[in-house]
Amino acid sequence: MPQWLTDDEQRAWRGLLQMTSRLDARLNRELQQTSGLSLADYDVLVLLTEAPDGRIRVFELVADLHWEQSRLSHHIARMQRRGLVGREECSTDRRGAFVVLTDIGREAIEKAAPGHAATVRRLVFDGLSEEQVAMLEAFTGRVLSRLDRVTSAVPGDGPAEGIS
Amino acid sequence: MPQWLTDDEQRAWRGLLQMTSRLDARLNRELQQTSGLSLADYDVLVLLTEAPDGRIRVFELVADLHWEQSRLSHHIARMQRRGLVGREECSTDRRGAFVVLTDIGREAIEKAAPGHAATVRRLVFDGLSEEQVAMLEAFTGRVLSRLDRVTSAVPGDGPAEGIS
Repeated sequence: MPQWLTDDEQRAWRGLLQMTSRLDARLNRELQQTSGLSLADYDVLVLLTEAPDGRIRVFELVADLHWEQSRLSHHIARMQRRGLVGREECSTDRRGAFVVLTDIGREAIEKAAPGHAATVRRLVFDGLSEEQVAMLEAFTGRVLSRLDRVTSAVPGDGPAEGIS
Repeated sequence: MPQWLTDDEQRAWRGLLQMTSRLDARLNRELQQTSGLSLADYDVLVLLTEAPDGRIRVFELVADLHWEQSRLSHHIARMQRRGLVGREECSTDRRGAFVVLTDIGREAIEKAAPGHAATVRRLVFDGLSEEQVAMLEAFTGRVLSRLDRVTSAVPGDGPAEGIS
């Protein structure tokens, strides 16, 4: 017997999917229009600003962003053409090339961040009580730890998928 | 002054982003490996199974999925080549073509659905109390209604973006 969701769970799940896709679309559009960055650009640049010396290896970006390798490669190449990031090849190290934050990239995210934070506040957090924020954090933390622990239904596909 | 998030809000927000991207990646991988469908295929097929006569106009899919038009067009073309959906042109009606569910598409989603539901249950809902489910639904509903109501920061970009 399949373990279907109850009606309440179904509504909560659909709500989460709807919210996520609409929030993504809205944040992406506002970012694009106010700063010229996409949400994907923004996510890459955030990771780079937080990395030591503003550089991260490609495989670490894959692990942090959970994008498919091909999507990441294409995206980084496009960001490179726009001058937002650079690439440092590393022929002596098997762990491969670094993606590095450029001055243009740093300036772009520093300019975009305040508006983006204000949009997130306006759409998600304004009027949320401290308890509700804590509940949201607990819920996401719970699912994240399940993603680490719960064995995949797919044979040979182990639970230890999370590096981040 | 930018309205930065508090530390608690920042943690909850990062948790939500992390959870969403990891859950997406995991659900996509399990679906692919067990049924050959991607999460994007699945989302399109769900909408078609729920539509009258298993057909939806392209612009309605754009509104429901919140994908960019070009992404949707490419995706539908690929699904069509795999026989999962068909296309009915509609030259007499300005609202444009229909995407229609094929027998192959219906069989594919009926086969994939029980496993997908079990994965969602295992990763998200197992062990969640009724209260927590209700809280999740309330939270997502709250953000969705803000997405409908809150005026965009971008001039000329009105609040009435949601059709779904």
